[in-house]
Amino acid sequence: MAGNNKQKGTDISKYGEFGLIDHLTKGFPLRHRETKKGVGDDAAVISPRNRQMVVTTDLLLEGIHFDLAYTPLKHLGYKAVVVNLSDIYAMNAEPRQITVSVGVSSRFKVEHLEELYEGIRIACDHYAIDLVGGDTSASASGMIISITALGRATQQELVYRDGAQPGDIICVSGDLGAAYMGLQVLRRENKIFQDDPSFQPDLSKYPYIVGRQLKPEARRDIIQKLKEKGVRPSAMIDVSDGLSSDLLHLCYQSGTGCRIYQDKIPIDTETALTAEEMNLEPLIAALNGGEDYELLFTLPPRLMDKLTALPEIRPLGFMTPPDEGRMLVTSAGSEIELTAQGWNAFGTPKQE
Amino acid sequence: MAGNNKQKGTDISKYGEFGLIDHLTKGFPLRHRETKKGVGDDAAVISPRNRQMVVTTDLLLEGIHFDLAYTPLKHLGYKAVVVNLSDIYAMNAEPRQITVSVGVSSRFKVEHLEELYEGIRIACDHYAIDLVGGDTSASASGMIISITALGRATQQELVYRDGAQPGDIICVSGDLGAAYMGLQVLRRENKIFQDDPSFQPDLSKYPYIVGRQLKPEARRDIIQKLKEKGVRPSAMIDVSDGLSSDLLHLCYQSGTGCRIYQDKIPIDTETALTAEEMNLEPLIAALNGGEDYELLFTLPPRLMDKLTALPEIRPLGFMTPPDEGRMLVTSAGSEIELTAQGWNAFGTPKQE
Repeated sequence: MAGNNKQKGTDISKYGEFGLIDHLTKGFPLRHRETKKGVGDDAAVISPRNRQMVVTTDLLLEGIHFDLAYTPLKHLGYKAVVVNLSDIYAMNAEPRQITVSVGVSSRFKVEHLEELYEGIRIACDHYAIDLVGGDTSASASGMIISITALGRATQQELVYRDGAQPGDIICVSGDLGAAYMGLQVLRRENKIFQDDPSFQPDLSKYPYIVGRQLKPEARRDIIQKLKEKGVRPSAMIDVSDGLSSDLLHLCYQSGTGCRIYQDKIPIDTETALTAEEMNLEPLIAALNGGEDYELLFTLPPRLMDKLTALPEIRPLGFMTPPDEGRMLVTSAGSEIELTAQGWNAFGTPKQE
Repeated sequence: MAGNNKQKGTDISKYGEFGLIDHLTKGFPLRHRETKKGVGDDAAVISPRNRQMVVTTDLLLEGIHFDLAYTPLKHLGYKAVVVNLSDIYAMNAEPRQITVSVGVSSRFKVEHLEELYEGIRIACDHYAIDLVGGDTSASASGMIISITALGRATQQELVYRDGAQPGDIICVSGDLGAAYMGLQVLRRENKIFQDDPSFQPDLSKYPYIVGRQLKPEARRDIIQKLKEKGVRPSAMIDVSDGLSSDLLHLCYQSGTGCRIYQDKIPIDTETALTAEEMNLEPLIAALNGGEDYELLFTLPPRLMDKLTALPEIRPLGFMTPPDEGRMLVTSAGSEIELTAQGWNAFGTPKQE
């Protein structure tokens, strides 16, 4: 829809070399005292004092990571920020700054970039982030978004992937598989629309799962609640590639096995019903779908009591010695070995 | 040459999701004590203690910023790192870490990525840089490289673009216009080769300018020498878009005019002779060519004495009050107003 048909609009070349990025980054205030210099010099300057700096980066490519046929540019801008912030939260750190570089082919106009940056701006407002650098460039084809996020934490706060012990409880926030099912709906409706342009897609039956796909949130709230309860996970990752793949990351890096239970995997009713409608298995969506941006973490059992008042955090199972394998126990009681069938930009092109 | 014809090689999909980036980033040691965590978690962790952190990012796109018909992948990897480090040095800071994200279409094989990362590795060795993050992804078309560089400095060391005063001397390191003339030679030879594949390009007549284009260096040596002499510039930028455009950046941000002299602009003999051969004006190459990655900075006049033992730094002129304009005084004694005709990825496609 956005970005494809609109031929009218302001040519990007109208803006001079200095002008475009100034124009697009107007209205991005610097909020944090430690951000000493934002956009406009050779580099941004940050004064983290006694904190550790946390850095993560993501490259989002049209036709691989997103499809503008069903992704509004404003949502895309928002989501591009959120997926990076999610990585910072997964370190138990606080995201504070981002840089944004965008490449666009000549089919994009200034108005398209304005929409994209409006989404970026809303995300920066919502999560209190300073935009401190980046650039815009022409591209030979398609849209390219590269975002680097910076965060901070004390050394004691940081949580890595490698800290889990056998016996630790595996927990996940929210529910899983919804963003993947939202993507399937968007693709199905878009395909019908491509075949018959008079078709009006009706997404109102799928508000939750479509929202999870188009406008995900990073779980800042979970990080804050854990902090309030005095709970520091032993290991943590965000669920971007799917529960199976991301849990295996924790296992590999911590040197553990794991045992999780199908019955414990949280799946929203809308996710399950839509999967049924499309003859898909909800469990597969949860295990391999990805883009949930929930937090997957492990806790020493003695800390579990502190989570009783947090219903949005569910225990899935526990870590085991490595020789016990990485197992899913199904509702029928059988055991299946977990495999990394998560999203892979090269191998299994789920997004294409 | 590289990346175009080679159809043989290892399919990237051979590597699993976890495998490719591990494979490519093997042999990248972490050198710096403050790099607490590199590749392999949700984010890298850096402990800058009492230093300021400096952050810059660049997006390099095939067909816009580089052409693989005449750019060896190893050189491209090296250059992609160097152009980011140059921005860190231009803050009078010390680059310490980078993240590298690469997108490649299916025409690229694992061996191509290995060549690219070999160049990245050599640059990291040469400049003592820790590779701390990033990713590889498929792209719908072409190669995409996104690099973020992090550096550090004390608050006193940092030099911004906005600190110049009227009367300050404008200095530049090295010489200008060579990378641009190198690009013209590479394009000319490549065009002849495209028309007649039996043609053997002979670049041996142009070693300096071709080297400046394909394998530029960041001026770490200049930053170190200024430090040894106790000289802190009042304003600084690196020459990436061309002398004219980058000097105007210093003027705009410092609120000054400027007056530089054609006779003082350092141009290498090979640059001048090649320009003559191609019926181009060496002055234009120096003013608007770009990609020199020299340092352009201003100094209070009293500090000039300290530079007498540094012949690779030349005074070009001086900053003036803003109402005196931004002027170039030609060898014939006439005055020309400087304009920003530097490299612009949207407007004037010099690189296309």
